[in-house]
Amino acid sequence: MAGSTYGTIFKIMTWGESHGTGIGVVVDGCPAGLELGEADIQAWLDRRKPGQSKFTTARQEGDRVEILSGVFAGKTTGTPIALEVRNTDQRSHDYGNIMDVYRPGHADFTFDRKYGFRDYRGGGRSSGRETIGRVAAGAIAAKVLESLGIRIQAYTRSIGPVSISPERFDPEEMWKNRLYMPDAEAARAAEAYLEELMARRDSSGGVVECRVTGIPAGVGEPVFEKLDANLAKAILSIGAVKGFEIGDGFAAAGSTGSVNNDAFGLERGAVCKRTNHSGGTLGGISDGSDLVFRAAFKPTPSIASAQQTVNRSGEEVEIEIHGRHDPIIVPRAVVVVEAMTALTVCDLLLVSMSSRMEWIQEFFRR
Amino acid sequence: MAGSTYGTIFKIMTWGESHGTGIGVVVDGCPAGLELGEADIQAWLDRRKPGQSKFTTARQEGDRVEILSGVFAGKTTGTPIALEVRNTDQRSHDYGNIMDVYRPGHADFTFDRKYGFRDYRGGGRSSGRETIGRVAAGAIAAKVLESLGIRIQAYTRSIGPVSISPERFDPEEMWKNRLYMPDAEAARAAEAYLEELMARRDSSGGVVECRVTGIPAGVGEPVFEKLDANLAKAILSIGAVKGFEIGDGFAAAGSTGSVNNDAFGLERGAVCKRTNHSGGTLGGISDGSDLVFRAAFKPTPSIASAQQTVNRSGEEVEIEIHGRHDPIIVPRAVVVVEAMTALTVCDLLLVSMSSRMEWIQEFFRR
Amino acid sequence: MAGSTYGTIFKIMTWGESHGTGIGVVVDGCPAGLELGEADIQAWLDRRKPGQSKFTTARQEGDRVEILSGVFAGKTTGTPIALEVRNTDQRSHDYGNIMDVYRPGHADFTFDRKYGFRDYRGGGRSSGRETIGRVAAGAIAAKVLESLGIRIQAYTRSIGPVSISPERFDPEEMWKNRLYMPDAEAARAAEAYLEELMARRDSSGGVVECRVTGIPAGVGEPVFEKLDANLAKAILSIGAVKGFEIGDGFAAAGSTGSVNNDAFGLERGAVCKRTNHSGGTLGGISDGSDLVFRAAFKPTPSIASAQQTVNRSGEEVEIEIHGRHDPIIVPRAVVVVEAMTALTVCDLLLVSMSSRMEWIQEFFRR
Amino acid sequence: MAGSTYGTIFKIMTWGESHGTGIGVVVDGCPAGLELGEADIQAWLDRRKPGQSKFTTARQEGDRVEILSGVFAGKTTGTPIALEVRNTDQRSHDYGNIMDVYRPGHADFTFDRKYGFRDYRGGGRSSGRETIGRVAAGAIAAKVLESLGIRIQAYTRSIGPVSISPERFDPEEMWKNRLYMPDAEAARAAEAYLEELMARRDSSGGVVECRVTGIPAGVGEPVFEKLDANLAKAILSIGAVKGFEIGDGFAAAGSTGSVNNDAFGLERGAVCKRTNHSGGTLGGISDGSDLVFRAAFKPTPSIASAQQTVNRSGEEVEIEIHGRHDPIIVPRAVVVVEAMTALTVCDLLLVSMSSRMEWIQEFFRR
Repeated sequence: MAGSTYGTIFKIMTWGESHGTGIGVVVDGCPAGLELGEADIQAWLDRRKPGQSKFTTARQEGDRVEILSGVFAGKTTGTPIALEVRNTDQRSHDYGNIMDVYRPGHADFTFDRKYGFRDYRGGGRSSGRETIGRVAAGAIAAKVLESLGIRIQAYTRSIGPVSISPERFDPEEMWKNRLYMPDAEAARAAEAYLEELMARRDSSGGVVECRVTGIPAGVGEPVFEKLDANLAKAILSIGAVKGFEIGDGFAAAGSTGSVNNDAFGLERGAVCKRTNHSGGTLGGISDGSDLVFRAAFKPTPSIASAQQTVNRSGEEVEIEIHGRHDPIIVPRAVVVVEAMTALTVCDLLLVSMSSRMEWIQEFFRR
Repeated sequence: MAGSTYGTIFKIMTWGESHGTGIGVVVDGCPAGLELGEADIQAWLDRRKPGQSKFTTARQEGDRVEILSGVFAGKTTGTPIALEVRNTDQRSHDYGNIMDVYRPGHADFTFDRKYGFRDYRGGGRSSGRETIGRVAAGAIAAKVLESLGIRIQAYTRSIGPVSISPERFDPEEMWKNRLYMPDAEAARAAEAYLEELMARRDSSGGVVECRVTGIPAGVGEPVFEKLDANLAKAILSIGAVKGFEIGDGFAAAGSTGSVNNDAFGLERGAVCKRTNHSGGTLGGISDGSDLVFRAAFKPTPSIASAQQTVNRSGEEVEIEIHGRHDPIIVPRAVVVVEAMTALTVCDLLLVSMSSRMEWIQEFFRR
Repeated sequence: MAGSTYGTIFKIMTWGESHGTGIGVVVDGCPAGLELGEADIQAWLDRRKPGQSKFTTARQEGDRVEILSGVFAGKTTGTPIALEVRNTDQRSHDYGNIMDVYRPGHADFTFDRKYGFRDYRGGGRSSGRETIGRVAAGAIAAKVLESLGIRIQAYTRSIGPVSISPERFDPEEMWKNRLYMPDAEAARAAEAYLEELMARRDSSGGVVECRVTGIPAGVGEPVFEKLDANLAKAILSIGAVKGFEIGDGFAAAGSTGSVNNDAFGLERGAVCKRTNHSGGTLGGISDGSDLVFRAAFKPTPSIASAQQTVNRSGEEVEIEIHGRHDPIIVPRAVVVVEAMTALTVCDLLLVSMSSRMEWIQEFFRR
Repeated sequence: MAGSTYGTIFKIMTWGESHGTGIGVVVDGCPAGLELGEADIQAWLDRRKPGQSKFTTARQEGDRVEILSGVFAGKTTGTPIALEVRNTDQRSHDYGNIMDVYRPGHADFTFDRKYGFRDYRGGGRSSGRETIGRVAAGAIAAKVLESLGIRIQAYTRSIGPVSISPERFDPEEMWKNRLYMPDAEAARAAEAYLEELMARRDSSGGVVECRVTGIPAGVGEPVFEKLDANLAKAILSIGAVKGFEIGDGFAAAGSTGSVNNDAFGLERGAVCKRTNHSGGTLGGISDGSDLVFRAAFKPTPSIASAQQTVNRSGEEVEIEIHGRHDPIIVPRAVVVVEAMTALTVCDLLLVSMSSRMEWIQEFFRR
């Protein structure tokens, strides 16, 4: 049902396979008058691109984005913005050992059952390269939000058993290590852990945490279109994500009301919450505090060790997956989490403009 | 943006406030020819209704559902099915102490900021009574699924610190205790915990686990409309939910690829997974294994202890919330989780019918 | 696919069959703070209800609307507004001669082919009574628009061969005759024509014209969500409509560019069009002139004369349709055209608020 | 609100401006397994491209389509199909006389009012070149339909005052003249009329008629998603269309029930209609007869004669539009009508697969 489409007002459609001609996205519904150039988008894509450290694949791709429409004289025109990244690494590969085999942890089997066949080159549509479209579109949504004072920052919270420590949290540090961990000591421990895993041809999972600041109270629609519900869908739509929690999340399930409730208070005349166990939403609507949520990523399914599986002919076989594979997805997924967050918040924010008659009347009296 | 609407093909719109005239839902897109009577829906509503134990509110409501349209001669006609539950407990209340005060942990503040004012009676639209519409519609979706051999079963997995034990798991037991815990020993421990909390005017959170059996491989759309992403949204849209995880969920983030990957094998000629760390989806598409996921519920925010807050006049005040409030939401939420799951799976299942040209050609050759 | 749902931001879902329990609608996405009472909606329903003249059916229904949710203290709350009209005329009827026969010009055959069976009582869901839901929702949309200075007025333009004359056009007159014709002379001629048709057990078609004043320039989205394209769908969705045209419509196809182009000029400093061949849209976006469009209604298909048809057993049979049937649908459809117009314009108007970054920035700087 | 998106299951998003980098479309939701190559799409684009006769613009563009994704080994994979046509005619132009002036009959003024500014090069997004995306996507939808035995054929019915004659109707003839008129005599008269108009720097409107054969009964959803209502929106979304009618259309408004009702009969055991005044729908659902509808196109607004208008500085000015402009849009719009019809019918056809429980059960029993 058109699964590659996202959003209601600020809507995107992504396309492209790992080893096809290219990857792209069309953004339909971006407001007119936003200053936008390819550099704005490229900066986001550069954060997700491979080959940045020994823990990310060596594939050296340019991943250069081109704006094909919707921008004139340096500003968005209100019409669809088409963005495209041509694949440059299209060497012919030998897929002999995987084209007919279902790789464990991958979508090979489910795509075959759903569609009858699949583009087996590099995972086709279910490859992580699919996220290029999301990130490119997310860069635009984030720019809309920034112009309204809303900022999104995600980072690596844990890799395998290694977590950042609240005491050592240093937002500048995340830009200094390639794991995007805002804690130098944790980053070193995580590097050691990953090296050990690579030595035994294994991979690790991890957790990304994301914080949104500056979001006004009132964003999100009651019942089914809650802000946190939409964020959950946005985040779970990222390939390897297996869990989402906002505020205290699963820990809240073990807590009590007297602890978990955030008391309201006044600060310089404005209502504020004294704590933020809720993670920034009440009843699914932003409450004026920072949004804080986490995404659990499973370990990279592509590992070099031998694995038991089945092929399309219905035979049990053993498979070894060769080639370039990150032992951890998380560092490159940080920007994807930010992109999906930007797309979700931007869409719901625009919708919230029509919540009240008095706002609408004021708007059209202009 | 029409936040009370859910689904694409099997679509619902819910309505109603806690202390208004009634609560209801319209189901638009239910296939024709499903045998359906009020008893089918009432059975689901009875599971969520209050007053069933000392841990659920004493409010004795009939919550009798009426089918107003879309059913003729005992079968659905393919046109919208309107379901309605009139509120019978509409005694005039004294809302003096809460109508102008923002209850901590509730949506009072955010509704005010979004809409400028709110129906303060019993929480209005943000009350748990809103779920009546979801459950009524979910009963229909579940009946569609059952006719295809797909069954949904949720239960209480934990209450505060008390979790069920895999060794003592007994599916029959959940029907014997009012906490819907499939483990008699855990249920007793949880009861003791809740009584202690009630004594000190506090409340507890908990976790609901849900299992879907019989779902064929191939349900869910790649990229943004993944089955698990849609489930995450569906579950997070339930009032007090703060987290969602599928399969190993957050534990997968601490695992390794060699452990977390589910090997494929053959069983009586059919492809199967040897384990189910994935929780039944690969690449967001059902993989033929059971769907298994969990929802984290925060503690009931309404507690009788004194809390610090603010009123609409911008004064800091202390509030005590009187009246009937469950010390735990989870047991009554079990059926709500099932309902949202049924609505989500049913919608994506119908969509999956048009995945392949050969299926479509075969269908229209009939 | 949920065919009874309409709108994106201001969204409605209608339900109900001719001879079922009732008819209703839920409006999801109405802004908060609109003053609304049952009388606002009843006034619209009264205009479509039967039994107003000898040309409309004698069925004396109350068609009393009840607001079940979404309004508190006389104002909309921003949450779904459920409206319901219980059917009072549910006498048991003898459908013996039509329950198995496909009435020519009706949807009996197509419903049977689509759904396998149908509610044959009074046309079921395909009855004109379905429009009660549209009209009730349209009354709310129209009230939103009126508060912004936008007014919608439809009227009967022709009945069979009898058309109103531009020279005799008198807006007050339409309220004086039961045919809603703003031309007393044409109304008399049309009455005579209808009496003649009734005498020979036949029926007439006609044309409704609609005018929207006060709509600002800029409403409607380019390409697929043009204002006129949405109006065309809205109007063609009304049961008996077979054609739609805006501005000069089909006459424009016979015209030339030099005649059909509307010159721009200035009036008191504001840009205006010197003529309005376009009917108020350019490129599918409102151009500041009045919207003017027409809907062609086919003759009432229920006629008392004998007709050739087929029954469900696959036999050719002759049918005579007894009972109360208007010889003309048009006068009662005038308010339905207004309702669909209000719903369409309101939805697109709210969407247009997010067209420009500067407007969005200004809004959130508030 | 994302106006460049169309469809629910078979969904498209188009992009591109007249003189930008290119024009394209992404098709999301096309079933897997359809044989598809660039030639399938190019054949459709060639029918709309300019420079085919003296009545179409001389601009010699290749308009070569490229498939960028969603096709593997010659078949669709079920994932998004990105199609792109790079603009080859991007010579720098002098827009001095139109960049600040509102051309009568064009969307210059409304785009400015909506977005604050616009891409004035060649009409930008409101140019007829926008239809390349629709036609490319429509070619795919048509191929899906053809594999089910459903064929779509549109043609020029009238140009200005010159109409085809039912007696001389010859389907082969439309391929022989460049006006796509299936009547050689009418084509000659229309050519003479157009030459006369060109001589006096004027332009003509016209009517396109479209016929869909082989569509089974049961396609279209009651109430708001009627097949004819969706066709009306699809057709009115084409730039210059001002009217839509199905079956007898506006003529039905002047007819009587005894004439306009189509009697049912039996033919070789199957139910059929003896006439087709309805144009193939009853109650908005396909009735098994051919779909027959018409679209009224206004005259090309770009004419070389002097016209009165206003510029962005608020001055009344006179404008003369130079350059290449067809004196008639209709012949090149024939394929656009077919494309929009294919997209609409395909989407509703896929939706109709889930109308009945028995069909769904049969499908999943496979």
